[in-house]
Amino acid sequence: MKIAVIGGGSSYTPELMEGFIYHIATLPVREVWLVDIEAGREKLSVVGALAKRMIEKAGVQIDLHQTLDRREAIEGADFVLTQLRVGLLDARARDERIPLRYHCIGQETTGAGGFAKALRTVPVILDICQDMRELAPKAMLLNFTNPAGLVTEAVIKYGGVKAIGLCNLPIGMRMNIANTLGVGLERIDTEMVGINHLNWTTRVFLDGDDITSEFLDRYLSEQGMTPANIPDLQWDAELLQTIGAIPCGYLRYYYMPDEMLAEEQEAARTTGTRAEVVKKVEAELFDLYRDPNLAIKPKQLEQRGGAYYSEAAVRLMDSIYNNTKDIQTVNVRNGKTLPYLPEDASVEVNCVIGRDGAIPLPPTVPLAASSRGLLQVVKAYESLAVEAAVHGDRAAALEALTVHPLVPSVAAAKQLLHDILAENEAYLPQFR
Amino acid sequence: MKIAVIGGGSSYTPELMEGFIYHIATLPVREVWLVDIEAGREKLSVVGALAKRMIEKAGVQIDLHQTLDRREAIEGADFVLTQLRVGLLDARARDERIPLRYHCIGQETTGAGGFAKALRTVPVILDICQDMRELAPKAMLLNFTNPAGLVTEAVIKYGGVKAIGLCNLPIGMRMNIANTLGVGLERIDTEMVGINHLNWTTRVFLDGDDITSEFLDRYLSEQGMTPANIPDLQWDAELLQTIGAIPCGYLRYYYMPDEMLAEEQEAARTTGTRAEVVKKVEAELFDLYRDPNLAIKPKQLEQRGGAYYSEAAVRLMDSIYNNTKDIQTVNVRNGKTLPYLPEDASVEVNCVIGRDGAIPLPPTVPLAASSRGLLQVVKAYESLAVEAAVHGDRAAALEALTVHPLVPSVAAAKQLLHDILAENEAYLPQFR
Amino acid sequence: MKIAVIGGGSSYTPELMEGFIYHIATLPVREVWLVDIEAGREKLSVVGALAKRMIEKAGVQIDLHQTLDRREAIEGADFVLTQLRVGLLDARARDERIPLRYHCIGQETTGAGGFAKALRTVPVILDICQDMRELAPKAMLLNFTNPAGLVTEAVIKYGGVKAIGLCNLPIGMRMNIANTLGVGLERIDTEMVGINHLNWTTRVFLDGDDITSEFLDRYLSEQGMTPANIPDLQWDAELLQTIGAIPCGYLRYYYMPDEMLAEEQEAARTTGTRAEVVKKVEAELFDLYRDPNLAIKPKQLEQRGGAYYSEAAVRLMDSIYNNTKDIQTVNVRNGKTLPYLPEDASVEVNCVIGRDGAIPLPPTVPLAASSRGLLQVVKAYESLAVEAAVHGDRAAALEALTVHPLVPSVAAAKQLLHDILAENEAYLPQFR
Amino acid sequence: MKIAVIGGGSSYTPELMEGFIYHIATLPVREVWLVDIEAGREKLSVVGALAKRMIEKAGVQIDLHQTLDRREAIEGADFVLTQLRVGLLDARARDERIPLRYHCIGQETTGAGGFAKALRTVPVILDICQDMRELAPKAMLLNFTNPAGLVTEAVIKYGGVKAIGLCNLPIGMRMNIANTLGVGLERIDTEMVGINHLNWTTRVFLDGDDITSEFLDRYLSEQGMTPANIPDLQWDAELLQTIGAIPCGYLRYYYMPDEMLAEEQEAARTTGTRAEVVKKVEAELFDLYRDPNLAIKPKQLEQRGGAYYSEAAVRLMDSIYNNTKDIQTVNVRNGKTLPYLPEDASVEVNCVIGRDGAIPLPPTVPLAASSRGLLQVVKAYESLAVEAAVHGDRAAALEALTVHPLVPSVAAAKQLLHDILAENEAYLPQFR
Repeated sequence: MKIAVIGGGSSYTPELMEGFIYHIATLPVREVWLVDIEAGREKLSVVGALAKRMIEKAGVQIDLHQTLDRREAIEGADFVLTQLRVGLLDARARDERIPLRYHCIGQETTGAGGFAKALRTVPVILDICQDMRELAPKAMLLNFTNPAGLVTEAVIKYGGVKAIGLCNLPIGMRMNIANTLGVGLERIDTEMVGINHLNWTTRVFLDGDDITSEFLDRYLSEQGMTPANIPDLQWDAELLQTIGAIPCGYLRYYYMPDEMLAEEQEAARTTGTRAEVVKKVEAELFDLYRDPNLAIKPKQLEQRGGAYYSEAAVRLMDSIYNNTKDIQTVNVRNGKTLPYLPEDASVEVNCVIGRDGAIPLPPTVPLAASSRGLLQVVKAYESLAVEAAVHGDRAAALEALTVHPLVPSVAAAKQLLHDILAENEAYLPQFR
Repeated sequence: MKIAVIGGGSSYTPELMEGFIYHIATLPVREVWLVDIEAGREKLSVVGALAKRMIEKAGVQIDLHQTLDRREAIEGADFVLTQLRVGLLDARARDERIPLRYHCIGQETTGAGGFAKALRTVPVILDICQDMRELAPKAMLLNFTNPAGLVTEAVIKYGGVKAIGLCNLPIGMRMNIANTLGVGLERIDTEMVGINHLNWTTRVFLDGDDITSEFLDRYLSEQGMTPANIPDLQWDAELLQTIGAIPCGYLRYYYMPDEMLAEEQEAARTTGTRAEVVKKVEAELFDLYRDPNLAIKPKQLEQRGGAYYSEAAVRLMDSIYNNTKDIQTVNVRNGKTLPYLPEDASVEVNCVIGRDGAIPLPPTVPLAASSRGLLQVVKAYESLAVEAAVHGDRAAALEALTVHPLVPSVAAAKQLLHDILAENEAYLPQFR
Repeated sequence: MKIAVIGGGSSYTPELMEGFIYHIATLPVREVWLVDIEAGREKLSVVGALAKRMIEKAGVQIDLHQTLDRREAIEGADFVLTQLRVGLLDARARDERIPLRYHCIGQETTGAGGFAKALRTVPVILDICQDMRELAPKAMLLNFTNPAGLVTEAVIKYGGVKAIGLCNLPIGMRMNIANTLGVGLERIDTEMVGINHLNWTTRVFLDGDDITSEFLDRYLSEQGMTPANIPDLQWDAELLQTIGAIPCGYLRYYYMPDEMLAEEQEAARTTGTRAEVVKKVEAELFDLYRDPNLAIKPKQLEQRGGAYYSEAAVRLMDSIYNNTKDIQTVNVRNGKTLPYLPEDASVEVNCVIGRDGAIPLPPTVPLAASSRGLLQVVKAYESLAVEAAVHGDRAAALEALTVHPLVPSVAAAKQLLHDILAENEAYLPQFR
Repeated sequence: MKIAVIGGGSSYTPELMEGFIYHIATLPVREVWLVDIEAGREKLSVVGALAKRMIEKAGVQIDLHQTLDRREAIEGADFVLTQLRVGLLDARARDERIPLRYHCIGQETTGAGGFAKALRTVPVILDICQDMRELAPKAMLLNFTNPAGLVTEAVIKYGGVKAIGLCNLPIGMRMNIANTLGVGLERIDTEMVGINHLNWTTRVFLDGDDITSEFLDRYLSEQGMTPANIPDLQWDAELLQTIGAIPCGYLRYYYMPDEMLAEEQEAARTTGTRAEVVKKVEAELFDLYRDPNLAIKPKQLEQRGGAYYSEAAVRLMDSIYNNTKDIQTVNVRNGKTLPYLPEDASVEVNCVIGRDGAIPLPPTVPLAASSRGLLQVVKAYESLAVEAAVHGDRAAALEALTVHPLVPSVAAAKQLLHDILAENEAYLPQFR
């Protein structure tokens, strides 16, 4: 089995390598190709060296390749993993700061920040799809690159390859539930409904018994069930009991945007935005990675917000390879799964995973009407954002930002769009 | 033909009477019953006397009745018109001022203000439906009471009577287009898509030829195409060209809420809110109405925001009575008309009008994705608001306000809900 | 206004000319181009001469052209009418006789006969569409050629032109209802639901009042409401009362195929099949047409089965030209009109007719479940037949015939297909 | 775990007991209640005694109860299994012989025979549902009673209990595929699409690889893949290659009804109908069962047509009890699974089975258009048959038979309906 990892120089790669090593018995990975671009050459070399030490120490038979030639890596691959970041953390920091100028949420994947990231990312991913169609037509694209839902939708509509979008949030939710209850992960099932970074856990099962309502009470009195990159503000108990489901952490941006904005503005003034914090964490991580005595994934990586990333990735590949037909929550073409969203939209729902890919399961309980409405308006934004990103369509871009619930007015949309296009010019060939 | 006018003491009644008088040849109205409640007794008597003078002067044969007994008026009626205002203008002024406290749009039909109005109005309308089922099972309810879309949806879902919701905005749009082009109304057709007070004119026809795009350019350079009750702020030309359709005036609340809020706050501080202004207009109108020499509709009524109200009402009744099968834009059950909205939702679309009621026509051009998303999220609010209003369901009420695009957060939703329930207690039996 | 009539040498042309002449005041036809192929040269010349005499006698200003050059006729046309018959009546006689060999209904438009006709006709119609796209891109195709539903569906899917499919059956049904009740046509409205030659009149209105159930009782006791080309067997009263709707005459082939087959077999043995009868009628008609003193449509034409054909055609053109927005029953793309049929299928339903074409109206009462099932299975046949006819796809052809309710088995389907392909070889370039 | 088996005196019960015994380790059955009616007292006592001997011999701890009191058996049950036969084999023989009188297919579950069986069975099943709602509200109904699709649809619409309809045909298909390929069952996956006794295996997987097209070729050259109760006539190779899927054996009634009818008529004249044959088999089986030395399921039972019945039943219970989330093909409410069928219809499709019941999976490849059309028309029949069976609605019954593809005309439908109602009078309280 050959795996191409695009964005191989990422600080997350040791996480992924650990996953390959742990699961080698059931997922016989033989070749891993770490690919990066010229600007990432040094990081690739550091990460690649660490990966080699990890493989050696574990005593497993994986051939590790490092390359700047993406086509060489993709050729004949079984899986292509995309974990790239166009424009690196500097671009992310801009994504976070531009919206703050106009009193809007500035976040990596949500709102105008996520929109900017999508404009930069989608053309690169579609290029990769083109390479895959040519060089590895049977390969499956596993996209981890954010905004994962939007990128997956672009691939569904324009990529022409088999693809699944993956996020660590669903498995993180299950992990948190298991931890909260003090039970093993394998005893917990969930039904998750929505789109990437905008979903609700509508059912929680313990050993097959539905404990949603009891768990919800408990959840409201607990802390710490939010990804590390989102401020952990308290949920409104009445609202959650009304909708009868557990919102993913990102829903704070929609339910309490004013408080979240205040947090972001405070952080921007003091500690720096999330990207600016992560830059320091990354620098420290790479210092660790350079240690020739390090041959395992360092603990510090877990603070990075991508916890369970390798767990999610390797489980998915394992289920595809071994045709296990188990249920995982991933991003796929909607079809009739959520009938209130377009059929060709990407959704993040429970799927049966097998050799053939991911088959979405219809939800077994209705979603709250307010959740449905929120999904619909954000999906309208996403459809427009995909058109803007693929075709460099300025009109679609303006329409996208205008309809986004976190952009207050068409005037703000125009200001945001102006700054985003200006400050990302180098990365937006489609708008030239 | 017997017509019951619920809220007969309204200052709009002379408008309606004028319509009956002008169209008596094709719409042979024989009995008009003006109904009001005890609190409206004096206004009813003033308006009733004027209506009688109008009939006399016109020399038409219409029996005019005034009554406080609604059942007597409804019994055997062919049409029941609802133009009532629960809580009168004082309640409307509160609807406008409560949201301003929390920096939200305060408007009669849009946002939290419209929500409060719906809570007060829906139970009364459903009582009227019960009377109709009992006393006039073949009658058609023509609802003019705001928020007309929401009230119509409540009737569709819970009323059990034939009903059409009517607003003067669609005919006003056509009138404005005709005036802008300097042609007669009969030469203009439009395709309107959306829900009440949230719709777009997606096509404009002159003598059957599609002139949408030329007209849009012209529209952007003209003023004065907005109902009198909405500040006439300039549209964003780029946005309108992008969506390729003419938004109804109320869409300013969604596209430029900050500027609209500023206008409202300024008005509240200076001239008073719209309800407070209207109170003075109404007082002046009633002074005119009391003049025993007045036997026609006074010109001043047209400043009231309800221009073309009688035109819309009488045309609708005429087409039903005479089975004309012409096309008018009214509020009806969606069915499959707008497939992105629930089937049992009310929508405001072009309909074929005949004896049997209104049959909605499918749109012939797609709606912009951003418009669709906006409709979906506001319709999610409306569905929840209907449940809240019908069942006195506080949870649904909170969910409704939370998902409304003009309510920024769940915290604001809770504050708004608290104040609305407290300050309307006398009118909300369903919440006791 | 320029009109191209493809198949201009048809015996129906005088009917059409009469329509143009009668309606010249509202439908100002200026040029009529009668087109035919080499094999129809003589008929074209006879019919053309008669048409000229009719124009002259009526004293109207219509320029009549006869041509064998289709492109010349289509260039710049406003309407293109197709009333052609590929293979002439000889081919139709084969369509009727082949099925009888295998104890199947042999009919011009229904069952295997209609299938054969579709195979011959669709390629010619799509050629005409290609000419239209090139030479008259704004023209509207009005297709009268049978099987009209199937041909219209081929145009919808592959034609790339504006098109409406027209049949005289719907107006004939209304005429018959009016005659039965002894009232004028303008007092009768109907709701018709289904596909061409397979539809039900689900509602009958007299002066806007629904009289469906009373009329149905009366209908069951009357004779003579069936097109001339279908044996007038008695309906089963219990079935009709159960479905609560009036079936079109062709439904006899589905409700009582054994009796209909017996009639056909008897006719084939004695008087000849319908085509063979019509050949004699046509010969007589052309003898009349040749009479240089004849300058009106001869009465005998009405026995031909196409009664009201010109009425239907001219009304449709009039409504389009004058943008009347009245309701007519025509064949159009389904969309969401009948949600139990595919969106891109052709359906025959009530439509609002205007400059822009025909907008289908959603039915206001549900169709009987058995009717729905029948429509679905016949539409499955039609979709496959369209693929077979367009692409010369033998597999689709076999699947089409196999699923047709009037073909009893796959074995019969194969025999039918063999004979149809063999005996129509000259007309089936797509299968070579 | 308590299991109530309604129709416990059936000759199939030893098959079921064997399943319980073999799977006791994972499916800890503690109480089995065999229920029958007075007329089945003797059979119940014979079967019950054998079941006890089987339990004893196996040395497992299952308490076996025999009772004529259904309510006692249902009270507190975890699973209620229905395998009853209203009117016994005599009624089935009539179901098979009545249609033959009118040259129609006479079959236990398909066509008019299945319709008669549904009329007798549905009221009894709905009575059982009422007992369940009262006495075992958390129990799951597993219905094996034919016509299983129709009965399941009646339960979905009117039963108010959790229910899954089960047939041994899907597992039989997989077993046959595995046997044909000479591999273990666990290496074969299938995608089955359709409704009970009318479905297609659209995909065949070996070790996760799609081998559908290769297998289809092989299938066409093999014999013996048809249930024992259906004549094993040769399929048409061209048709199967066209639709690209493997039809279930019952589709012979639709693809080659004439040959199947000939077979049935021949059998009726010589060996007797299937029911008449089965009566002898049953008599022989019960003779074996009476042998006090017999303590295992006798081999002869497998000739009965219900092969793999216990396998299917026990696997299903096991997956529910152990929440395994594996995929089985069962009968459930459609929802959006097959969008061309009504949402509240029963369909037989791949489902994920767990504690919560069965969640249907959307098909991953499209069904042939002819298969879709056939499903739609037969489902229209089924919906009407359910209404007829539940409400004793003669009009729905006539409509049901009329639309059935195997009933040639409304005249035949009326004759069939007359005889069915007359000869089943004792079992049709709903029609009195």
